[in-house]
Amino acid sequence: MLALTMGDPAGIGPEITAAAWRTLRRGGPAFCAIADPAVLAPLLPISVVESFGTGGFADALPVLPLQLAARVQPGQAQPANAPAVLASIRTATRLAQQGIAGAIVTNPINKAMLKAAGFTHPGHTEFLAELTGAAGGEVMMLACPELRVVPVTIHVSLRDAIAQLTQDAIMKAARITNAALIRDFGIARPRLAVAGLNPHAGEAGHMGQEEITLIAPAIAALRAAGLDVSGPWAPDTMFTVPARQRYDAAICMYHDQALIPLKTIDMGGGVNCTLGLPVIRTSPDHGTAYDIAGRGLADPASLIAALRLAGQMAARRAGLS
Amino acid sequence: MLALTMGDPAGIGPEITAAAWRTLRRGGPAFCAIADPAVLAPLLPISVVESFGTGGFADALPVLPLQLAARVQPGQAQPANAPAVLASIRTATRLAQQGIAGAIVTNPINKAMLKAAGFTHPGHTEFLAELTGAAGGEVMMLACPELRVVPVTIHVSLRDAIAQLTQDAIMKAARITNAALIRDFGIARPRLAVAGLNPHAGEAGHMGQEEITLIAPAIAALRAAGLDVSGPWAPDTMFTVPARQRYDAAICMYHDQALIPLKTIDMGGGVNCTLGLPVIRTSPDHGTAYDIAGRGLADPASLIAALRLAGQMAARRAGLS
Repeated sequence: MLALTMGDPAGIGPEITAAAWRTLRRGGPAFCAIADPAVLAPLLPISVVESFGTGGFADALPVLPLQLAARVQPGQAQPANAPAVLASIRTATRLAQQGIAGAIVTNPINKAMLKAAGFTHPGHTEFLAELTGAAGGEVMMLACPELRVVPVTIHVSLRDAIAQLTQDAIMKAARITNAALIRDFGIARPRLAVAGLNPHAGEAGHMGQEEITLIAPAIAALRAAGLDVSGPWAPDTMFTVPARQRYDAAICMYHDQALIPLKTIDMGGGVNCTLGLPVIRTSPDHGTAYDIAGRGLADPASLIAALRLAGQMAARRAGLS
Repeated sequence: MLALTMGDPAGIGPEITAAAWRTLRRGGPAFCAIADPAVLAPLLPISVVESFGTGGFADALPVLPLQLAARVQPGQAQPANAPAVLASIRTATRLAQQGIAGAIVTNPINKAMLKAAGFTHPGHTEFLAELTGAAGGEVMMLACPELRVVPVTIHVSLRDAIAQLTQDAIMKAARITNAALIRDFGIARPRLAVAGLNPHAGEAGHMGQEEITLIAPAIAALRAAGLDVSGPWAPDTMFTVPARQRYDAAICMYHDQALIPLKTIDMGGGVNCTLGLPVIRTSPDHGTAYDIAGRGLADPASLIAALRLAGQMAARRAGLS
């Protein structure tokens, strides 16, 4: 069984949780929400469980209970609820570390709200890395059925992304991706395509040097280590339909180089997947969407895709598929 | 009638010219190639004309003749042919300036080959701008049926693109795009969406300042001037299907921010269109493709789309549609 965190209860988490249960209750994967039953009970049939993994799934969503400090108003940040939001993540992580939960799937959180309550991590990914003792080894992968992308640098300005790009960072992202594709995605020999940084991948140094000084050396070193790595590819032509057939994941130099093609291709079912942790973790690739929370407008596709991917990864890691 | 330049005769230009004629000979738009008849004659029926605009189109491609200095070997750069390649562009431009040709459509050139023969411009766009006395006022737009994008900076390293970004450059690109969409695309009140530079458009300054210091002020000034301009938008979510319905063109901060979504969406029919020139000019969005030249593998879709778009723009400018 998968552990689904509560996320920010004032966002769209509760309603997409209910919609995901309705979609998955018969075919699975089964999941248990770690949340306040009072928030979910109005939305779907639930069964409050005393321990994770007990209770059925097809007739009611099992909920491992937590209690929120303040009443939830959809769309209204409520820092008083931050401790419960974080407790849900901590509990899910512990259950996954103990092998009781097959994987963690996280509902969106509001970082500004958590920050107001003293949370200092940039996001889920870094928090989970710290909780599991894996800090510094985590890598973000975004996946949809047509494409997997791994940005080497993430939530920094474009200027800083260029400054932070190193041969080591590229190699680390490629190695962690390679290992995860073998272990959790069932790809025996992953093909990794590494993007250039500059237009036309620098055109032999005419439009930037990073391909020559950082990216090509990283590719050469990875190949020497036996990985199937190609590039540096011109960023604008590597995400076309024929180009995508040639690799299992694209290693990208900055956030939007990875996220623009993924979100442009995908129609809402993209999944964020943290690689390099001792536990499996996926999440939808959107935020709390305060602007539409509680109005029945939220699209559950990305959460459903995140649950399905987590289920597949957990089954592979457990040797069940 | 449209003027189609020869492009590099050792690239795929001759074969896609022949394929485009076969597709367009009945429905149009009609075009005349300014090229060496000896290169085209083996590929399709041609009629050598003495002056542009004479001769039919349905039964044979009219060719205004030029003579190449050296024999063409597909895939082999031949700097001796550079003068004829440039003469084709000059003639097409003159015919368009005189109103004899409705528009210029350019076949791909090999900049390295032309450079070896003394050509100093970065590409077609700048050469045409100089020939028409419009240097500094030209803007590149890439268009496919689903999306139009205009990069504010083009063929420079990503580092230089950030350094060169100014409020003036953003405003110039937006103004030229706005005027061209009204005049040549028949859009009475164009809606322009301006991208941010940084991930999540900087998230209120947490990941970069350019949105605050350059982009938002440019948008405010353009709005004050009466243009329908929105942004700065988060780059990764502005090219999804629903987001694309909200604008007629995206003003992008750098080459790949514009080209990645366009080439990812489009299946080979993207068109490069130079705005801000006194003449209409379009081209396919690919290069000479030396690697497949002369083997019958080249896809003519982008050249056909470029000819069709040029025909539509010329008709609008002439008041015919």
